[in-house]
Amino acid sequence: MPELTYQEGRTELDALGPYALIERLTDDFEHHHASTVLGVGDDCAVVGEGKVKNLITTSTLAEGVDFDMMYTPLKHLGYKAVAVALSNIAAMNGTPTQITVSVVVSNRYSVEALEELYAGIRLCCQRYDVDLVGGSTGSSRSGMVITVSALGTVDEECLTRRSGARLHDLVCVSGDLGSAYSGLLILEREKVTYQANPNFQPDLESYDYVLERYLKPEPRLDVVRQLAEKGVVPTAMIDVSKGLASEVLQLCKASGCGCEVYEERLPIDYQTTRVCSEMSQNMLPDSNALNGGGDYELLFTVAQSDYEKIKDMDGVHIIGHITEEGSPAVMVTPQNSTIQLVAQGFRN
Amino acid sequence: MPELTYQEGRTELDALGPYALIERLTDDFEHHHASTVLGVGDDCAVVGEGKVKNLITTSTLAEGVDFDMMYTPLKHLGYKAVAVALSNIAAMNGTPTQITVSVVVSNRYSVEALEELYAGIRLCCQRYDVDLVGGSTGSSRSGMVITVSALGTVDEECLTRRSGARLHDLVCVSGDLGSAYSGLLILEREKVTYQANPNFQPDLESYDYVLERYLKPEPRLDVVRQLAEKGVVPTAMIDVSKGLASEVLQLCKASGCGCEVYEERLPIDYQTTRVCSEMSQNMLPDSNALNGGGDYELLFTVAQSDYEKIKDMDGVHIIGHITEEGSPAVMVTPQNSTIQLVAQGFRN
Repeated sequence: MPELTYQEGRTELDALGPYALIERLTDDFEHHHASTVLGVGDDCAVVGEGKVKNLITTSTLAEGVDFDMMYTPLKHLGYKAVAVALSNIAAMNGTPTQITVSVVVSNRYSVEALEELYAGIRLCCQRYDVDLVGGSTGSSRSGMVITVSALGTVDEECLTRRSGARLHDLVCVSGDLGSAYSGLLILEREKVTYQANPNFQPDLESYDYVLERYLKPEPRLDVVRQLAEKGVVPTAMIDVSKGLASEVLQLCKASGCGCEVYEERLPIDYQTTRVCSEMSQNMLPDSNALNGGGDYELLFTVAQSDYEKIKDMDGVHIIGHITEEGSPAVMVTPQNSTIQLVAQGFRN
Repeated sequence: MPELTYQEGRTELDALGPYALIERLTDDFEHHHASTVLGVGDDCAVVGEGKVKNLITTSTLAEGVDFDMMYTPLKHLGYKAVAVALSNIAAMNGTPTQITVSVVVSNRYSVEALEELYAGIRLCCQRYDVDLVGGSTGSSRSGMVITVSALGTVDEECLTRRSGARLHDLVCVSGDLGSAYSGLLILEREKVTYQANPNFQPDLESYDYVLERYLKPEPRLDVVRQLAEKGVVPTAMIDVSKGLASEVLQLCKASGCGCEVYEERLPIDYQTTRVCSEMSQNMLPDSNALNGGGDYELLFTVAQSDYEKIKDMDGVHIIGHITEEGSPAVMVTPQNSTIQLVAQGFRN
């Protein structure tokens, strides 16, 4: 009766990125239902036989990995767990309609703590007009794990996958990048100081923007709405959960193309720049933008012919263009040198 | 920067049952979408505006609570995680179509271990003709948590809630009860013996039925199919995940009725009886059936007029009848005394 965790021929989980891992685990699954339009490998699965397609996506946040209870208010956490799932619906150019929430917690948590969590869940549901239709709570040995499944809808002709980017398409991103990770850096810094001296009062006020970006991200459903109003259907889209570099690579891989992103076009907030300069002389804001993750902005491509419609869209930045099949995904510096984009792994 | 787990006015999670807890957490959520037919409080949520309704349900299994890696083969675990979710689709009289799977694991697990888990997931998908359409893996600080969301469909007129039981309806249950919990008791006994003496070779062979019931339960989609073939739509249905007593109480509460269940009618396998007699003189098989949980059988009610259609259904047992509003849910002993049913809490 030895513990059944299969030690022989062991490959560590870290050896594969999260995208490669799920691909390896699921690539021999077949689909049999006519209603299955799109399976594993995009921000959502797509199901349904009518003109209006149903979207489904599942996201999980685990204590100690995706959040630290030392500095994460439960209400923010509930909000974020929903926002992260809704961001996947946005990334398919869809509209969310319902969610289910599954929480496992250790008995370290009280009913009142879960009520705080659910207050945040409710707030995000209200804000984005989403119905909570299912919920379960269970026990865990240690810590909290929250899984949110979101349902949504999208008209067939508006459905946007990762795989539709074509040569010369413009590469766009909403909002700014690297701010959520900058917020996390501040929280981690203050935590270390507090642990060394529990009388220490953390000064968080001047970092309000980056902290909110980390603790309470917003799904960019406003961008989806704006695109619809302008009559633009992106050719490809993905949300920026793991950092721009990782998402650009995913989009290029799915679309079978390369990409040039201009360093000077990366949208970076001044608080992000300030946090980087405070942290270390060697920390570049670009690096936070490319590899930080957790921004939940939308990265998308549009046909060149949509340039006029897109160029003045509120909070949307054109940062590059799609290059031909076989080309790498690169960042072009102001000095016109190119740096190949590399996925730095898994950060929230 | 104190840890944010809200100690004041603390109510322990154990103070409420799982059903009462989720009710308390979600009862002030409103629904705004016309497509939301049924929210929290049944085995599945029901969404969709057409005649064919969509079902969605989410189930979570957590290491150390719902399964023990000491005696749970990962392939069985993957199978069970899917089966548990599909059982909820069955409990709405529906047919499952797609699932998404979200797994968080510590780095104690290898890629090969996850491949074993996914081999079990695939087996259950193949057996019940379900497409895996979404998957994600993440890290956890300790142990594994698996969440499966299942989608399914059901014709509007076949949709079966917990709330439809009416006076004099027959109470039926599929399969047998208490065997899964008996399997768990055996595994726990052998584990203790093995821990005391690692050279010990556990003898599990003569318990094959109850072990399989615990480690690899089957969703009773065959019962759903049989009901359709016989032209019977149950008036109410729930799956037996937490033990018969708890489920009878839920069904009665949702339907606003009482219930009499006959002790001598409880379907109990001889292996369950044997395990109980081996374990302790005081352990009654009835108690395993009522409170053990994890059987994933279907408890349902049908109109008396369906008696002829139901009486010879393969593996379906009529165990009692619905009594009027205000009556308690009771078990009637062979000596004709009545014992009020009580939910014993949360077991898998």
